[in-house]
Amino acid sequence: MSEVRPIILKLGGSAITDKTQELVAKTEVINRLADEIKRADLDNLIIVHGGGSFGHPTAQRYGIKEGYKEPTQKLGFAETHHVMTMLNGLVMDSLILHEVPALSIAPSCCVVTDNGKIKIFEENLIKRILKMGFTPVLYGDVVFDEKLGFTVLSGDQLVTYLAIKLKAEKIVIGVDTDGLFDEDPKANPNAKPYRHLTLEELKKIQNKLGKSSGTDVTGGMAGKIAELIPAVEHGIHVTITGATKPLSINRALIGKDVLGTEIEKA
Amino acid sequence: MSEVRPIILKLGGSAITDKTQELVAKTEVINRLADEIKRADLDNLIIVHGGGSFGHPTAQRYGIKEGYKEPTQKLGFAETHHVMTMLNGLVMDSLILHEVPALSIAPSCCVVTDNGKIKIFEENLIKRILKMGFTPVLYGDVVFDEKLGFTVLSGDQLVTYLAIKLKAEKIVIGVDTDGLFDEDPKANPNAKPYRHLTLEELKKIQNKLGKSSGTDVTGGMAGKIAELIPAVEHGIHVTITGATKPLSINRALIGKDVLGTEIEKA
Repeated sequence: MSEVRPIILKLGGSAITDKTQELVAKTEVINRLADEIKRADLDNLIIVHGGGSFGHPTAQRYGIKEGYKEPTQKLGFAETHHVMTMLNGLVMDSLILHEVPALSIAPSCCVVTDNGKIKIFEENLIKRILKMGFTPVLYGDVVFDEKLGFTVLSGDQLVTYLAIKLKAEKIVIGVDTDGLFDEDPKANPNAKPYRHLTLEELKKIQNKLGKSSGTDVTGGMAGKIAELIPAVEHGIHVTITGATKPLSINRALIGKDVLGTEIEKA
Repeated sequence: MSEVRPIILKLGGSAITDKTQELVAKTEVINRLADEIKRADLDNLIIVHGGGSFGHPTAQRYGIKEGYKEPTQKLGFAETHHVMTMLNGLVMDSLILHEVPALSIAPSCCVVTDNGKIKIFEENLIKRILKMGFTPVLYGDVVFDEKLGFTVLSGDQLVTYLAIKLKAEKIVIGVDTDGLFDEDPKANPNAKPYRHLTLEELKKIQNKLGKSSGTDVTGGMAGKIAELIPAVEHGIHVTITGATKPLSINRALIGKDVLGTEIEKA
């Protein structure tokens, strides 16, 4: 069998959880997305979801991202992973109910970072899973780190890493807005959407963006763009669209036009 | 840091679930065991739990153990893994609530078998987890198989594999009876317990034992003994005791006498 070139779908933590609270999932959004994913009927899909109101508050409370400093953090590391498996369990429940042959892969089991950047990723498993026609599901997670002892690995970094490593066909990023805006559209109703961006334009706006609302230890939108840039440099097309409104994710997965931001190298 | 010689605790599926029903966990047993584990205060513990009424009925319905034969089994493979993560989630919930720094490791993420026997196990992670003072938690799971495409990996095989590979100090097996009996004590009240067994005696009784009650695609007690024998041959002490009665597991973990069966090479 030849290598499968995957489509990577990121479901943002802000889209599938309520980040104004703690441990609150938007199960109605998750169920609709599972239905849209099933109807896209892809045999080369990888799903990565964020931590939202599950992983982030717990990780922040224990200072997990900053690394291992004292023994009491160990319980925090374990607890952060556990709440992420709870959110992942809700996503998996819904995917399997919709008959998507989804298999979860915990990054804490197969990734080691070095000062926050992925150093080791056991990729044979994910290649095997894809070839057999399963849909791997990964998520932002706590991971062991060569320098820091442990840290937080964002779903965004995973998306770009997997996209480059597995030569992704494209990346679809589902957020709680209709793509990228020049300002935070939740704070400013006059924020203007970007409909099409080149790599050069993306780099220019990278530093202009503020933080997204709510607690996000993996960084706000600016951090997300910084993580995306290497994938765009590798010529991978990125679509950023709304996951909280019906059909955008389904349409983006099957290659139809959507309300959102299309990013291309040039 | 020198290598940690672990104590491996197996929690049998029959002890932590109700095998006469489907998807029913004995949460009161799980909570008490989490308390007993916390109070044992071990920094070299590995926990492996069985599938009981979660993994086994689903795996059997789709013929997962026998390997990949048709595409419809893919959903069964995904579903079996998912129900095992549900049971594991209940165990993890309880361990973390009791402040055990427990980290789950899904065997489907790090094990590949060959005709049902473990061929590849990414053991660096589990060594790292142990060294940092976490308690790894594994479980019977579906795994990919070189010959069969996929299959079922029993918690029993995992226990022996890890015990030999990591030079375990001892193995404690928690079941729903007070150790090994000459007949099934649940069917025959006159069944006699074995209090002490040598390797030779264990081999002799291996074929005499019948199947344990309920559905168990990983084999009954005879299958469990067959899996244990290689660990005993490596000189690892095995205690089989009741996990459904208070304090036996706690006592066995800290090296006190328990009502059960002690197995030694000679």
